Amino acid sequence: MPTAQSSPLIARGANASLAEQLAGRFAQRIDQRLLAPGAKLPSVRDCAQRHGVSPSTVVGAYDLLQARGLVQAKPQRGFFVREHAAPAPAANRRERGPLPAPVDATALIRCMFQAQGGLAAPGMGTLPESWLDAELLQRTLRKVCQRPQAWLRYGDPAGSTALRDALVQRMADLGVQATSAQIVTTVGATHALDLVSRTLLQPGDAVLVDEPGWAVEYARLTRLGMRLLPVPRASPGSTGSTGDGGPDLAVMEALLREHKPRLYVTVSVLHNPTGHSLTPAAAHQVLRLAEAHDLTIVEDDTYAWLAPLHATRLAQLDGLRRTVYISGFSKILTPQWRVGFVAASGALAERLIDTKLLSTLTTPGPLEEAVALCLQQGLLRRHAERVVSQLDAARARTVRLAQAAGCRFVTPPAGLFGWVDVGTDTETLAQQLLDEGWLIAPGTLFHATPRPTSLMRVNFATSQDLRFWQRLQALRR
Amino acid sequence: MPTAQSSPLIARGANASLAEQLAGRFAQRIDQRLLAPGAKLPSVRDCAQRHGVSPSTVVGAYDLLQARGLVQAKPQRGFFVREHAAPAPAANRRERGPLPAPVDATALIRCMFQAQGGLAAPGMGTLPESWLDAELLQRTLRKVCQRPQAWLRYGDPAGSTALRDALVQRMADLGVQATSAQIVTTVGATHALDLVSRTLLQPGDAVLVDEPGWAVEYARLTRLGMRLLPVPRASPGSTGSTGDGGPDLAVMEALLREHKPRLYVTVSVLHNPTGHSLTPAAAHQVLRLAEAHDLTIVEDDTYAWLAPLHATRLAQLDGLRRTVYISGFSKILTPQWRVGFVAASGALAERLIDTKLLSTLTTPGPLEEAVALCLQQGLLRRHAERVVSQLDAARARTVRLAQAAGCRFVTPPAGLFGWVDVGTDTETLAQQLLDEGWLIAPGTLFHATPRPTSLMRVNFATSQDLRFWQRLQALRR
Repeated sequence: MPTAQSSPLIARGANASLAEQLAGRFAQRIDQRLLAPGAKLPSVRDCAQRHGVSPSTVVGAYDLLQARGLVQAKPQRGFFVREHAAPAPAANRRERGPLPAPVDATALIRCMFQAQGGLAAPGMGTLPESWLDAELLQRTLRKVCQRPQAWLRYGDPAGSTALRDALVQRMADLGVQATSAQIVTTVGATHALDLVSRTLLQPGDAVLVDEPGWAVEYARLTRLGMRLLPVPRASPGSTGSTGDGGPDLAVMEALLREHKPRLYVTVSVLHNPTGHSLTPAAAHQVLRLAEAHDLTIVEDDTYAWLAPLHATRLAQLDGLRRTVYISGFSKILTPQWRVGFVAASGALAERLIDTKLLSTLTTPGPLEEAVALCLQQGLLRRHAERVVSQLDAARARTVRLAQAAGCRFVTPPAGLFGWVDVGTDTETLAQQLLDEGWLIAPGTLFHATPRPTSLMRVNFATSQDLRFWQRLQALRR
Repeated sequence: MPTAQSSPLIARGANASLAEQLAGRFAQRIDQRLLAPGAKLPSVRDCAQRHGVSPSTVVGAYDLLQARGLVQAKPQRGFFVREHAAPAPAANRRERGPLPAPVDATALIRCMFQAQGGLAAPGMGTLPESWLDAELLQRTLRKVCQRPQAWLRYGDPAGSTALRDALVQRMADLGVQATSAQIVTTVGATHALDLVSRTLLQPGDAVLVDEPGWAVEYARLTRLGMRLLPVPRASPGSTGSTGDGGPDLAVMEALLREHKPRLYVTVSVLHNPTGHSLTPAAAHQVLRLAEAHDLTIVEDDTYAWLAPLHATRLAQLDGLRRTVYISGFSKILTPQWRVGFVAASGALAERLIDTKLLSTLTTPGPLEEAVALCLQQGLLRRHAERVVSQLDAARARTVRLAQAAGCRFVTPPAGLFGWVDVGTDTETLAQQLLDEGWLIAPGTLFHATPRPTSLMRVNFATSQDLRFWQRLQALRR
């Protein structure tokens, strides 16, 4: 992981003027969407103080940004990042049409990629590279290279037979009986979620989602024209709550009655961002509601390998009748191979294959075969056991550091992510920490409708640096 | 290629009764969608005659199929294949909703995969396996396996840098200036078409498509809720026609005026199924119309490597201003790796990346790196040259055989596909040939609205068997 440094923003005596340097720094952040369209720039006074320059330098910098069309001044309110103009003729027409462009969420995931380039990232969504097993990947893919004849024809539209057979065993380990005809491979779990949405939903449909939840899923559903109905999690004050971070069943039932949603997209094990896992009792209640209201549940088990086998999955209780189970290997093996899958009833699996054919035709065979090898020989299981041990140690250390810095965990720490109350607006904090080389994930990114919050998500594995928590504590004051 | 045999359908003396055997044969075909939902079974008399059984055996078989829920009898009309029932509770509700399920097109592409299992396939859409270079694939992917460290982080959302750099050179070879920032990699060309549709269109939009054309593209657009506006190709009789198989410009202009479509999805080089390539003059006219009506053109160059470098691409004339260029490697290198790409204006490329992030997040790095190696060292170019020589020879032979069998080529034979008039309804012919082990691609599959036609698409590489043309000639009589 790169070391974060509090590098001075402004280098006096450099060629560009101070205002130009400052403008350049903001321009870069806007370009990378670390400052999203619509975001407010700091006030002139704050900015001047922060960077040790005169207010007139800041005014000069903001004028330069305005002249370049990157920000706009709003009377009495300050400077705001403009929406990007799209010069392509046909593209431009409906920039603000009925389907909003998912700028904020894609900004987040773009950050996910850019974070690799020199930023220390307590906010990132993956395990550190050094925890993964490059040698295992190399060995299995090399082995697959021994049979290149298989690559000369199209693969099975459902996906590699070897992988689907191995996944039948994996599902059995999780307590879910499925045949290989019920499993469809995908280009990562993201693709699986996309296929399910496109198969079961139509524009205008209402969909239940966890809130807080994963912003990319909100963005995808919004982009497909769906109406999001957030079901609160981690709301222990509520009467209908499962008390400890589960979905608020009273809200859920009210939404079911009023809006008749067709789908509930949820993470039942190691929920992102709270780390919460459903209790068997809560899972039973969720399924009872689903039954009563003819609801299909999409269970996104992206972090499956970091959780115990015996963690309660909805698919296990329900037996894939009204639950669609999704998982993948990006978070435990490699994000570059893009291998995921969906398990569903036989009839739905057939329809998912139809959607897959229209979306990517088939999926990359060699990589699926290599993942199958990892599964077949228990290699992945042993790797995951090592990762879980490492994560347990990292979590203990990070929790200690966070609490020492005055932060409070909203839900009991578990899995990869902690959901932390830092006691100050985390979006402002994010911009300040960015200046010092730290990328965090402010809580607003996990809300279906962004709003100021003092919560943030921390990655236990990448937040073990004492200096980060010291800076956070200092800025918080 | 498997050898086709005219195997007797009914084995007398076998355990199952004749009616059961006959029903089983139909059931299998329905299951594989070689008999699509809605298709009519042969009349009892025809079927009895064809299979050398009594009419009562056929009636018994049809009764069995009806009892199993596979077909339904319509008074005065005969027996028809039922729509598949989808038992999943939520899935079932809108089976016949406003967005029709693309049963027919996915049936076609499912056939594409099933065709490998023992059917000789003059109708298939790919090169024969034996023409591809397994050793080249093995060598390049093995080389990529030397650097597994790269797999531990997410790839660039735009795709592998090495591949995009190599594609900049490829585009330059085609006479198109593009930077790597204008190129986005995809999971095959199908995925590229999907990303473009999802980025530029909204449900209800009108889209111009070639007719005849590729049914999967019709199905995708229909599934996304678009209105298809077919532009006839190969209609030399029309006044506005380019005369030789190009788009009918008079029809195109009328549709542009009346419906104001946003997009035209077209194959300008080695069009599927006609094999036609746009003349420079026709390309210029198409672009003029696009300019006048603010139309974006999606140029699908799936069969690019089978065409000369100097073939006229719209992207070449237009410089990616209002043309989006799509191609891939499934048809020349391997269909299993699923590597494709889209080249567009810089602003549109950015938006395509956003859609890609919501669809598959990123694309599989190792396979893109391996394709880059094929491109960088001229290996793919030399392989393609060998394939083109082989195809030239195959085309000459197939054309001779087809003409000797009384078939007429509607457009001058070129590339991989011939568009052939056989003088009898090709859907009926397809079912008859299927009984004898031959899979053909009846013309109705290439129409936006299926209708009876005496046309079919032949694959020059897989239609060199004299016996096929002899059977076709015999059945035609």
